[in-house]
Amino acid sequence: MTKAVPEPVTKLVDAFARLPGIGPKTASRLTYYLLRAPDEVTNKLADALTNLKSQIKFCSTCFNITLDDPCPICSDPRRDHHLIAVVEEPLDVLALEKTGVFDGVYHVLHGAISPVNGIGPDDLKIRDLVKRVEQGDAVEIVIATNPGQEGDATAFYIHKELKPKGVKITRLARGLPVGGDIEYVDAVTLSRALQGRSEL
Amino acid sequence: MTKAVPEPVTKLVDAFARLPGIGPKTASRLTYYLLRAPDEVTNKLADALTNLKSQIKFCSTCFNITLDDPCPICSDPRRDHHLIAVVEEPLDVLALEKTGVFDGVYHVLHGAISPVNGIGPDDLKIRDLVKRVEQGDAVEIVIATNPGQEGDATAFYIHKELKPKGVKITRLARGLPVGGDIEYVDAVTLSRALQGRSEL
Repeated sequence: MTKAVPEPVTKLVDAFARLPGIGPKTASRLTYYLLRAPDEVTNKLADALTNLKSQIKFCSTCFNITLDDPCPICSDPRRDHHLIAVVEEPLDVLALEKTGVFDGVYHVLHGAISPVNGIGPDDLKIRDLVKRVEQGDAVEIVIATNPGQEGDATAFYIHKELKPKGVKITRLARGLPVGGDIEYVDAVTLSRALQGRSEL
Repeated sequence: MTKAVPEPVTKLVDAFARLPGIGPKTASRLTYYLLRAPDEVTNKLADALTNLKSQIKFCSTCFNITLDDPCPICSDPRRDHHLIAVVEEPLDVLALEKTGVFDGVYHVLHGAISPVNGIGPDDLKIRDLVKRVEQGDAVEIVIATNPGQEGDATAFYIHKELKPKGVKITRLARGLPVGGDIEYVDAVTLSRALQGRSEL
């Protein structure tokens, strides 16, 4: 009875359903939406997908996504190349850039140590970071991994690897999120905020 | 500072964000997922999108999506061509086919009358339905639009148009959903279930 659904439709539903956070129902809904939407919507999406992998590469210095190698940040002489922020994902670079207060360069690990998911240090760009510190003239490494178990494990491992190299290693402060309400802040964050309190 | 995001990435984020139910955050997440996923995932999605519009057409009889015109259902001699179920969307055909109890054919309206969204009868395949009834040998039209305000308005309009043609017009029963709990059923559904009660 399922001959009611032509193959190109089921194929697109299946392709959408392989994306994270998109279940079979959403995949159907998207597919049937595109069937009725102007051709231009579908074409733009198809072209963008094709161009993504063909045009994007990873910077051989910081491993951020880029069109040109080295990336615009690594090749910018106005940035402080002695200061390297270590982040998990390219999206984290974006978040730090948006603050407008960081003028150093980056190192993208492409993940965090996660024994549960079978991700060890060698699956990340940690060796490349150590090599970069050994060969370069880094003065400070700001570890900006996520404030959670995996980010903490990754920070700990990197700290252990880099300490013998004589470079200064710092980590982003933990504390109350700006605009947050103490009443609703979780106990761990609140205790970190207490431990890290500063004099006025 | 946003030169940290190469154009192919922002283009794909924008293309995803144009889809219904996908906001900018989800669009970013999908894009960065694809950057790290095997090429095959991206390629399959791009190919499926390209094939969708080039291979899929609408059946000139029932307006369901199909590879061949007329569609497999309309060209199936074992189906009852005197019995036509009128539905809003191709997905509704699928839902009815899954029941395995309907052996008639379909007519897909491609929407419902919705003054709020500026959709009138002429934006739907209602004229084509009237023509089909006039030119064919339909005996019964089962109106299977959604049980809501727009579906009701559409059913009412179709009923008004088809009544003079001397064809039997029915509508799907309203009542308790199987497996539902009376305690949690809304008052409108419950009153419909009472009105439509049948003798045991």
